[in-house]
Amino acid sequence: MKIDILTLFPEMFESPFNYSMVKRAIDGGQVEIQPINFRQYGVGKHQMVDDTPYGGGAGMLLKPEPIFEAIDEIDKQTSASKKRIILMDPAGKPFNQAMAEDFSKEEHLVFICGHYEGYDERIRTLVTDEVSLGDYVLTGGELAAMVMIDATVRLLPGVVGNEASVVEDSHSTGLLEHPHYTRPAVYKGMEVPAVLTSGHHGNIKEWRHKESLRRTLQRRPDLIDEMELTTKEQEWLDEFSAE
Amino acid sequence: MKIDILTLFPEMFESPFNYSMVKRAIDGGQVEIQPINFRQYGVGKHQMVDDTPYGGGAGMLLKPEPIFEAIDEIDKQTSASKKRIILMDPAGKPFNQAMAEDFSKEEHLVFICGHYEGYDERIRTLVTDEVSLGDYVLTGGELAAMVMIDATVRLLPGVVGNEASVVEDSHSTGLLEHPHYTRPAVYKGMEVPAVLTSGHHGNIKEWRHKESLRRTLQRRPDLIDEMELTTKEQEWLDEFSAE
Repeated sequence: MKIDILTLFPEMFESPFNYSMVKRAIDGGQVEIQPINFRQYGVGKHQMVDDTPYGGGAGMLLKPEPIFEAIDEIDKQTSASKKRIILMDPAGKPFNQAMAEDFSKEEHLVFICGHYEGYDERIRTLVTDEVSLGDYVLTGGELAAMVMIDATVRLLPGVVGNEASVVEDSHSTGLLEHPHYTRPAVYKGMEVPAVLTSGHHGNIKEWRHKESLRRTLQRRPDLIDEMELTTKEQEWLDEFSAE
Repeated sequence: MKIDILTLFPEMFESPFNYSMVKRAIDGGQVEIQPINFRQYGVGKHQMVDDTPYGGGAGMLLKPEPIFEAIDEIDKQTSASKKRIILMDPAGKPFNQAMAEDFSKEEHLVFICGHYEGYDERIRTLVTDEVSLGDYVLTGGELAAMVMIDATVRLLPGVVGNEASVVEDSHSTGLLEHPHYTRPAVYKGMEVPAVLTSGHHGNIKEWRHKESLRRTLQRRPDLIDEMELTTKEQEWLDEFSAE
């Protein structure tokens, strides 16, 4: 997979992509990541990338020309039909795991990171996806792009060592993860639940499934509304509400 | 504001916090940010921070001792009553703008960044908030903490130059932002809407309000469900559905 990032702050990406899983994926050849400073396509001798909004108002907007020219340059290197151009935008579709899975199947992703107050509307004609990281306001699109890239790259084949652990993660099964325990068996008076040290695999599996459902009910009942429940899950839900 | 970050990858934070708004807030003295590698509190001569889960399963869990000891150390420096201890966790409450506003009023935030498969459950007894960045899976909590810190720090008084622009952002008014345009007036045949160059402030304000509502209806009807609509907004919604 190839990832281009249009940004005014390419240096921001240095340390996050130099550690942890993304670094391993780069070293392993599963992904090639290139931050591109689109100021090089800025207008005039001052390389202007932003200007005041028509109609007045606070803040500056990204001008269309530098972004169009940067995408033109990328187009010259790869066939336009094979890429997704993703605009980081608080007014976009909220990013989620299904979108990460979708992105992970592409050959070429281009992330456009805004700054200042927003984008000239015409920039949107270039893009295939307008995506928001969540319902909160960030200074720029860079951190949002890092998060989306992390969530996407870890799904590429061979990147995360243990495939099983990707599948069992929260948000992959529809339920939140059950509680986990490791050594010591007793810490500051707090004990590991006996079932987990029983060695009885059937009971452990059932306990984990039930506690996943309990945690999801307590914290994210909205996720349960979207699920098709088994008879057993429905019984557990009845049991929880009786408690 | 003081922010401590418990992490196994303190170096990841170098470049994101060395540019843009967070850097200005650090330089301006509005925030002090300290990544702390909790491996220094690891167990035994190998400074172990993770171990296999009781009951079996894929992946490694963060052990309780290093996190408890790191928090103890922070407690020695500041009064425990005055801080929020925030666990980065996909099973947590989804982060949003109201939470960023809430965090921005605190004196001291501590972010705990997980890695591997998750946390020993007993770590949760230490924390005041369990927060998820969104419904997607990340390799670790570091990028999530960066995003939450960015969203929080920009709300501190004096950090973002233009207070008006903070207030008008998407997700601060309840509606998504209206389209924006800057120069040139015509680009690749695409024109700026005439109302924005009319100089009529009343019309511009109304156009923007209406287009904010339209965009929100198209992309995030869930946000409209949560609003109390004015008579005018209700008329516009009727108009949109007639179109």
